Amino acid sequence: MTDARLETSPHETHGTRDRRQGGGARERRRAQRQAAAGGATSAPAYITRALPPYDILGEEGLARIEQAADRILAEVGIEFRGDPVALELFRRAGAKVQDLRCRFEPGMLREILKSAPAEFTQLARNPARSVQIGGTSTVFAPAYGSPFVMDLDKGRRYGTLEDFENFVKLAFMAPWLHHSGGTVCEPTDVPVNKRHLDMVHAHIRYSDKPFLGSVTAPERAEDSIAMARILFGPEVVERHCVIMGNVNVNSPLVWDGMMTGAIRAYAAANQGSVIVPFILGGAMGPVTTAGAIAQSLAETMVGCALAQLVRPGAPVIFGNFLSSMALRSGSPTFGTPEPAAGSLVVGQLARRLGLPLRCAGSFTTSKLPDAQAMQESVTSMLSAVHCGANFLLHSAGFLDGLLSMSYEKFMLDVDVCGALHSYLAGVAVDDNALALDAFAEVGPGNHFFGCAHTMANYETCFWDSQLADNDPFETWAENGGLDAAARANARWKAMLAAYEPPPLDPGIDEGLRDFIARKKASMEDAWY
Amino acid sequence: MTDARLETSPHETHGTRDRRQGGGARERRRAQRQAAAGGATSAPAYITRALPPYDILGEEGLARIEQAADRILAEVGIEFRGDPVALELFRRAGAKVQDLRCRFEPGMLREILKSAPAEFTQLARNPARSVQIGGTSTVFAPAYGSPFVMDLDKGRRYGTLEDFENFVKLAFMAPWLHHSGGTVCEPTDVPVNKRHLDMVHAHIRYSDKPFLGSVTAPERAEDSIAMARILFGPEVVERHCVIMGNVNVNSPLVWDGMMTGAIRAYAAANQGSVIVPFILGGAMGPVTTAGAIAQSLAETMVGCALAQLVRPGAPVIFGNFLSSMALRSGSPTFGTPEPAAGSLVVGQLARRLGLPLRCAGSFTTSKLPDAQAMQESVTSMLSAVHCGANFLLHSAGFLDGLLSMSYEKFMLDVDVCGALHSYLAGVAVDDNALALDAFAEVGPGNHFFGCAHTMANYETCFWDSQLADNDPFETWAENGGLDAAARANARWKAMLAAYEPPPLDPGIDEGLRDFIARKKASMEDAWY
Repeated sequence: MTDARLETSPHETHGTRDRRQGGGARERRRAQRQAAAGGATSAPAYITRALPPYDILGEEGLARIEQAADRILAEVGIEFRGDPVALELFRRAGAKVQDLRCRFEPGMLREILKSAPAEFTQLARNPARSVQIGGTSTVFAPAYGSPFVMDLDKGRRYGTLEDFENFVKLAFMAPWLHHSGGTVCEPTDVPVNKRHLDMVHAHIRYSDKPFLGSVTAPERAEDSIAMARILFGPEVVERHCVIMGNVNVNSPLVWDGMMTGAIRAYAAANQGSVIVPFILGGAMGPVTTAGAIAQSLAETMVGCALAQLVRPGAPVIFGNFLSSMALRSGSPTFGTPEPAAGSLVVGQLARRLGLPLRCAGSFTTSKLPDAQAMQESVTSMLSAVHCGANFLLHSAGFLDGLLSMSYEKFMLDVDVCGALHSYLAGVAVDDNALALDAFAEVGPGNHFFGCAHTMANYETCFWDSQLADNDPFETWAENGGLDAAARANARWKAMLAAYEPPPLDPGIDEGLRDFIARKKASMEDAWY
Repeated sequence: MTDARLETSPHETHGTRDRRQGGGARERRRAQRQAAAGGATSAPAYITRALPPYDILGEEGLARIEQAADRILAEVGIEFRGDPVALELFRRAGAKVQDLRCRFEPGMLREILKSAPAEFTQLARNPARSVQIGGTSTVFAPAYGSPFVMDLDKGRRYGTLEDFENFVKLAFMAPWLHHSGGTVCEPTDVPVNKRHLDMVHAHIRYSDKPFLGSVTAPERAEDSIAMARILFGPEVVERHCVIMGNVNVNSPLVWDGMMTGAIRAYAAANQGSVIVPFILGGAMGPVTTAGAIAQSLAETMVGCALAQLVRPGAPVIFGNFLSSMALRSGSPTFGTPEPAAGSLVVGQLARRLGLPLRCAGSFTTSKLPDAQAMQESVTSMLSAVHCGANFLLHSAGFLDGLLSMSYEKFMLDVDVCGALHSYLAGVAVDDNALALDAFAEVGPGNHFFGCAHTMANYETCFWDSQLADNDPFETWAENGGLDAAARANARWKAMLAAYEPPPLDPGIDEGLRDFIARKKASMEDAWY
């Protein structure tokens, strides 16, 4: 079904198929060498996974969750606040509208979603960085939305535009991140109503990877798309996805007009929307995982369907963000086992819908880039790649329940993203991998260090972390006995010091600056 | 097939079926409360997983690896050093023996392995602690074999008997470890030839969980079994598995007489052997994962078959320990992506053989209980539970490539083991989990905090970590701003301070002391 759809959707015609084999060992190794040298790299533009997703429920269990979602949609319904246009679109499509509440007959939304592409390409301004989203592709993007930033030298403080630019630069240089993300931290020194202009500009100036635009108001989404038109040209934007908005549901079961307005703006321009319910079990949804998933499925289907009603074929990503709660304190918890298992089910549901998936990321509640941070983050990150997520927002930097973007955690997470390139390549079983000649050559009791098979394969066989310390204890102690966070601290500083911007057409930059200047001049500063 | 075998093997008749449902939410929650109180707990004796294993290769790929193993066995063969008895056993069974080399026709070992039980029970001296090994059961045991121990106060030093006893006590109190393990650290203050006596005695005195005996020489295996006979009585030992040896292959393709002697000793007494090739890719095996797995399969089948030749039906565990190498330095690396993916294949192969599996654990090369340690450990530990491993040695404490047993890492890992209890329970999809009544009660835009469904489920719905800090940043800072390792440091000290030994029949302890005194008196001290 996926392949058949591919041929009919304009979003798949952009020629990135050749790069889809970019997850190969040789390219990974080249990228590793470049990462060791500290510079920007020509790592694969995205991962084409060989490892199959991890399916944990059978048909009956999945059908029960889908039926629960259908009942939530038909019996309880979704409320649309502040967006009569969205209500009217769904009313015309056959939903039952009563005041702000919209109820959907089972099957109605699935029918509408048939126009959504199963895969699409998001263009980057550097064509070699364009990413494929959906199918077997995996795209890593930095964390999104922290008001604070944090590093080992200065501790926690509010993020600034300088921090924002730093993270865009680091994500550009990080060989294992494929996407520049969106609000990598809040630049709190810029007025709220003007931030989006500087953020989109920073993504364009300091990186050549694909990026996200603003969603905090429909007009900010429009501004983001307008800037993309200056960068790519209006004809390209009309035909291809070049920018996306990451849109949150106001769970439970409410779509806010700000968010649906943003979805409508991106869809009308043929641009992408990531539709993400954030469900903290016990607060915005039930404490049981299956119920939270059913709710999430209902809410996401509505958001994705809205984009299709505005413009059939508009790219959408089925998003999900499950979280749990510390029930002694009521605090949110992240990287815990229930959402990790739940994500595997979400992946199965997204594949049954035939939509690209965003799910999980490097989640943690730790306040430091410590053992807890990586224990929780790896639990969550592996759930994302196991569930088959195609677009992984929050792949790097996430700390303190997303309140802080951490420079050191960012580097630690990027290293995990690198390891996942090797992991998702799966286990090859060709003749070279089976190494029968090596056994004949080496024989019992001898070592494989210098054998022909080792010499032919040693450069590409193992992931080579730039942050892990694998030295003997004595060597490690002589080198200062640093922990991983201290090594990460040295590394982000070295990377930023080595940063060089990718070339950008001066005419385009001038056009962007003019646009931003005019927009800013037209508004009073707003700080909330 | 597994069920049919179950009915024919004496090892499955021990009545533990009722406890196999012990992974339920209510029991987990009770154990969580007890863990919070810092005392020993009545957590489930082992996990009965609901989450299915993660299969990543299809029939063709698995068959290719099995055929490669068959060719290694038939064409290169296995060398037996220092054990003419083992050679003779295999010669009589049909293997081609030439000097020390033994070659096996394809299918021969699989035929022999048909007598091995697919599942068996290892009895604990406290019957409520007996563990089921195989099938859907998962058993966590501490790390094994470190010469050093480490804590944040005193740093790294050689392990002593006091450290050994401390780790046995901590494992006894840790609600999420099911097994006391074996050489939890080397008690280097005891002569090498007498250590096993004190180690087995410590497992018996300070814990009532099941444990491993010595394998470093056949007579030490015999001593371990003799002590088990004193504890359980000779009739019970004759009929049930009460002790196991963890036996390493001398990879590549060599079985050392010390190790095969230990296998023969345990098998002859109807006791268990864990057969484990440790393959560091590029040294003791090829650098490519599939080749290392084929070698491992060949080596393990030989060890398991030897036990069957000694005594058909003797319990064996199919073991595996894949590792990679930092090819710039030649240092071993742990918790890396290639072994993690490879473990998933090993799980599939073990299930095809119908044998219980030991695989992976909380591996890391980090020298501190830091971000690297938990990043690598969680990667490796999740590969173990995803691949369906039944017996997880190295579940807690592993640091510095197994050179150090860390007190703090032990506590961090135990917390992960706890989370895995919830994770392996999978995602329930019954009516309560789907929570449809809650949606009807709460409705759009309201929160679920106080709704009836939340009140009925909040105590059992989410894993409640004792080590993770989920508090707001300000609360965390007011409480000292500790990292996870510092919290773990406080926690192991509190646990040890609260330790109380489980009751032990004084007559049995006297018998053990007599046995140890006589054995020690019969030997000169040996220090290597």
